[in-house]
Amino acid sequence: MSDEPITAERVQQMITRGPFHQWLGLQVLKVEKDAVEIKATWREEWVVNPDKRYTHGGILAALVDLAADWAFVSRTGRGVPTIDMRVDYHRAAMPGDLIAKGRVVKAGGQFSVAEAQVFDKEGALVASGRGVYFTAPPKA
Amino acid sequence: MSDEPITAERVQQMITRGPFHQWLGLQVLKVEKDAVEIKATWREEWVVNPDKRYTHGGILAALVDLAADWAFVSRTGRGVPTIDMRVDYHRAAMPGDLIAKGRVVKAGGQFSVAEAQVFDKEGALVASGRGVYFTAPPKA
Amino acid sequence: MSDEPITAERVQQMITRGPFHQWLGLQVLKVEKDAVEIKATWREEWVVNPDKRYTHGGILAALVDLAADWAFVSRTGRGVPTIDMRVDYHRAAMPGDLIAKGRVVKAGGQFSVAEAQVFDKEGALVASGRGVYFTAPPKA
Amino acid sequence: MSDEPITAERVQQMITRGPFHQWLGLQVLKVEKDAVEIKATWREEWVVNPDKRYTHGGILAALVDLAADWAFVSRTGRGVPTIDMRVDYHRAAMPGDLIAKGRVVKAGGQFSVAEAQVFDKEGALVASGRGVYFTAPPKA
Repeated sequence: MSDEPITAERVQQMITRGPFHQWLGLQVLKVEKDAVEIKATWREEWVVNPDKRYTHGGILAALVDLAADWAFVSRTGRGVPTIDMRVDYHRAAMPGDLIAKGRVVKAGGQFSVAEAQVFDKEGALVASGRGVYFTAPPKA
Repeated sequence: MSDEPITAERVQQMITRGPFHQWLGLQVLKVEKDAVEIKATWREEWVVNPDKRYTHGGILAALVDLAADWAFVSRTGRGVPTIDMRVDYHRAAMPGDLIAKGRVVKAGGQFSVAEAQVFDKEGALVASGRGVYFTAPPKA
Repeated sequence: MSDEPITAERVQQMITRGPFHQWLGLQVLKVEKDAVEIKATWREEWVVNPDKRYTHGGILAALVDLAADWAFVSRTGRGVPTIDMRVDYHRAAMPGDLIAKGRVVKAGGQFSVAEAQVFDKEGALVASGRGVYFTAPPKA
Repeated sequence: MSDEPITAERVQQMITRGPFHQWLGLQVLKVEKDAVEIKATWREEWVVNPDKRYTHGGILAALVDLAADWAFVSRTGRGVPTIDMRVDYHRAAMPGDLIAKGRVVKAGGQFSVAEAQVFDKEGALVASGRGVYFTAPPKA
């Protein structure tokens, strides 16, 4: 990683490069040591059921993965490959922006564990989970 | 559920109602007893890394969830709520349509387990996983 | 559940009835609202590798499950069936007693999520995880 | 790994070295390319509930882990560290020997995925799951 300090602005720049991230309307709210907070901007295409209007679990899964992944950025200086992930769904996520908070559980050499929570605009926990990430430095 | 037989066409109709499903370009290829096969149509917004061009893990997670969920459709006649899900990532999914195959592992009264695999257009396994689904009949 | 308050002593009595719990030498250290702390007493049979002497992951998995499960006891008044569970292994657990701390993530009607951490005698985190539990009241 | 062929007898020898494996009464029934079948011998200490007499989920978790882990033995020539594991519980496991079948899902360089099923003496599926294993060769 470069010597450039890892600020929310820097992480926002890296994240915004990804078309999927743009589609999710990601805004990096906070970057701390071993933790990150990211907002996703609601869009109509997230809806799974046109009557009940709740958000598809795949969107929530993506946010759990994203927040857990970028929780390592203060260490890695970049996004890292996901090895596996688990998501628990706690309640229906109705239309509205979502906030995902990621936190490192255990940083290791080769692989590391982080967890994340996703909240709706009222602050209710809609999903949470954890994943294992490949945090070995990239080969020179 | 209605007496209408659960055909691929019927499942396609139900799935297509969901805006997220439309965005994923889902095509129901096969519906069998306790199994389903669904194709998703690649789109540029799936890309996470504009240089390496691979698909975001959230898309693969959504497909694992979708295929495992709809594997119950021959029993439930509808999509069911996901309780939790696990995804393992096996290799980078490069641009191209994806095929997700779901299969029931254990059908129960209240909750049931299914698994799914996601393949790229060359037939390589890019992700797999399993989830627990809430399969109790809806309250009258 | 009875009107008897759920104290650590009461939970210890319930837990001690189980032969597997006796074999694990479980001691209930703390019972709080939505949280529990349980100690397991090391025994030679936990060892998986006679040279390196570390504890088998199945023991750690059992402790994650136990602590997450009994975290509900202030609500349920009893142990509840596990639907599924995930365990992440963080470092080798060397011979010595282990402490498992469980905490409710989301209490629901039919099923609920809890998480747990397992610490070695030096206080290092050796494993953590989460599970879904069937918390519906038993049928009359 | 040595040049010695990986037979069920050879795997039995390796497994039997572990005190926890001895306690589980493990018998290696079959070793094939990317697959293994192991029997565990029931013991009273497995019981969690003295009235209902079913086996503790921690035992089933240990068997899922063991079978998934040793499914790699035709490649690795040894047991490998578990990174994480998921177990789904399908029905109560009543007293009796259990059979665990493991199968490689995806073999990788650094880490690999395998799945396992646990059957009771009547052949009913009592638990299943999958895990990620650290399959990099040991450092010289």
